[in-house]
Amino acid sequence: MIKELDPIARVLMGPGPSDVHKRVLKALSTPLIGHLDPQFIKIMDEVMEMTRQIFQTSNQVTSVISATGSAGMETCFVNLLEPGDSAIVCVNGVFGNRMCDIVERCGAQLIRVDAPWGKPIDPDQLRLALKGCKPKLVAIVHAETSTGVLQPLTEISKLVHEADALFVVDTVTSLAGTDVRVDEWGIDAVYSGTQKCISAPPGLSPVSFSPRAVEVMDNRKSKVQSWYLDMSMIRKYWAGAKRAYHHTGPISMIYAIHEALRLVLEEGLQARFERHMHNHLVLKEGFESMGFEFLVAPEFRLPMLNTIKIPDGVDDTYVRNKLLNEYNIEIGAGLGEFAGKVWRIGLMGESCTQNNIDLLLTALKNILS
Amino acid sequence: MIKELDPIARVLMGPGPSDVHKRVLKALSTPLIGHLDPQFIKIMDEVMEMTRQIFQTSNQVTSVISATGSAGMETCFVNLLEPGDSAIVCVNGVFGNRMCDIVERCGAQLIRVDAPWGKPIDPDQLRLALKGCKPKLVAIVHAETSTGVLQPLTEISKLVHEADALFVVDTVTSLAGTDVRVDEWGIDAVYSGTQKCISAPPGLSPVSFSPRAVEVMDNRKSKVQSWYLDMSMIRKYWAGAKRAYHHTGPISMIYAIHEALRLVLEEGLQARFERHMHNHLVLKEGFESMGFEFLVAPEFRLPMLNTIKIPDGVDDTYVRNKLLNEYNIEIGAGLGEFAGKVWRIGLMGESCTQNNIDLLLTALKNILS
Repeated sequence: MIKELDPIARVLMGPGPSDVHKRVLKALSTPLIGHLDPQFIKIMDEVMEMTRQIFQTSNQVTSVISATGSAGMETCFVNLLEPGDSAIVCVNGVFGNRMCDIVERCGAQLIRVDAPWGKPIDPDQLRLALKGCKPKLVAIVHAETSTGVLQPLTEISKLVHEADALFVVDTVTSLAGTDVRVDEWGIDAVYSGTQKCISAPPGLSPVSFSPRAVEVMDNRKSKVQSWYLDMSMIRKYWAGAKRAYHHTGPISMIYAIHEALRLVLEEGLQARFERHMHNHLVLKEGFESMGFEFLVAPEFRLPMLNTIKIPDGVDDTYVRNKLLNEYNIEIGAGLGEFAGKVWRIGLMGESCTQNNIDLLLTALKNILS
Repeated sequence: MIKELDPIARVLMGPGPSDVHKRVLKALSTPLIGHLDPQFIKIMDEVMEMTRQIFQTSNQVTSVISATGSAGMETCFVNLLEPGDSAIVCVNGVFGNRMCDIVERCGAQLIRVDAPWGKPIDPDQLRLALKGCKPKLVAIVHAETSTGVLQPLTEISKLVHEADALFVVDTVTSLAGTDVRVDEWGIDAVYSGTQKCISAPPGLSPVSFSPRAVEVMDNRKSKVQSWYLDMSMIRKYWAGAKRAYHHTGPISMIYAIHEALRLVLEEGLQARFERHMHNHLVLKEGFESMGFEFLVAPEFRLPMLNTIKIPDGVDDTYVRNKLLNEYNIEIGAGLGEFAGKVWRIGLMGESCTQNNIDLLLTALKNILS
């Protein structure tokens, strides 16, 4: 007989999930009600309203996909692209590559704009690419979780709109941890995750579509290739009193994000961004005083995901295993070309505290001494 | 400021979600660990093992999709079908129609075998259809949640395999409430949901693929159109110690299904099936003594979803609203051609108790008197 689960508690300082507030855990354990219950419709309406606030948007079509952030990515592409369309994807890490994979599965023509991993996309590269094609959309990652790069978006947005394309942005790691201004920055389709700076469990993906993106979806010639992610039906399911059954909403997870979003807004977006930046600087100071170096140039560093070079002679796996098994601290490994070469240290949402930084620095000093 | 959620408790006797055991609610509130943590890998392995047990299968490729049952449906079709393939879908309710929609989105040729809603599919109809085509797969719903029909599968399975096609079965509502013998019945691809007789919250979909289905997936010429539901990657993510990152598993929901599956196996499959059948008969007796009639013929009735005709002169919405608002009991409305004509009364998993039946019958007597 398989035993009851009883995992040893961990300090979550990897690339997500982050620690979850006890109020969110309590919300998760609320007894279920039906997904068509008027009480649940109200909860969904409130989740939509709070999601608009954290995306800083008035987009009517703002909701939560019933699957993780990667499904949110897929939602944006399958709803906006049709076979034969073309799309520019900016790639400087794992998640840009994932976008490319999805664009091709949509039967669309892919044009890549690459930057070296660990560096942002250069707007001039995009400008050049836009001279040679007329894409339906341009997609970019705001916060590359695989490298720790924060991508400036305003200049890129301008170029995209001058080319009359839709602007699609991945904010999985940035949302609720640093500024994400969907309306002001002219973002047409945006998705995120819940297990990063929102500090809810993984399993949902907040999304938002501008009126321009909605118009494009409304004028599709073909059905969206994914039934589950088809926004034409999901919109009606989330449309308040007149809602139409699509799938069965993940009730407990919606409870969780409802409470997590309340916590975000109670703290206030600006205060939350400042906390993330402040703790990032504290962590930076600590690591630099131990002789470590960051992968990313200071002006493009993500506050919530710190990519630190592993010094020569230090064994990546040994250190991460020691941290996990002896100190119960989880940090992230490098991905792709950075495997074994960097650590990815998360300071996301509830995990972003002075105490966590102190624990990690002390443990690392002990292990490396 | 939006207030903390505090929904009034309901007795869940609709078509799902069902009531969730307090041990599952407790599991949901377990603090999170990383999805690549060795502790979590063990939990996933245990979920796979228990999922095999409830599907009564030794299929190695058995896991849980990180989205609801409808995504499990889509997973089966997008992984098995390629553009130009053909598929027979048996339709006698909403979920057969949904399968058709997905088959067409896969670019496959659809052949429908229809039966009237409320009746099972006649094997002779399928036999006839198989004379005229050579489909890659035949799909059918074991338990039509929209009508309450239990579809016998053994004869259908024989026909499908004689035609050398793959046999795809929807067990969203039947699994863990009535017999589902994946291996013995020759089912090649099967999916379910968590919010019916498993009594976990909605948000996951158990799936299983036979070696024959896996071979077909391994020999695809084209990529699966959905990145998120691509089993070639999901299999590697669930493959124990050597697992490869795909998406971030929905940790809290995996905790929940782990405990819910433990409860199912503690009770024992046979005892659980008998409880569902016993309570179905109790409910039947109670309704029939009040003069109500069932939609479905006795030999094809689902024990966990009772479809009861609304008598002339009784106002559907009035009664359901009264039940919900004054008695806090949720029952399901009719769907499609049965809207306003039937009620769908769930006796699923934790909701399947004598007390719930007594509550419902008493409330209905009061409302209708």
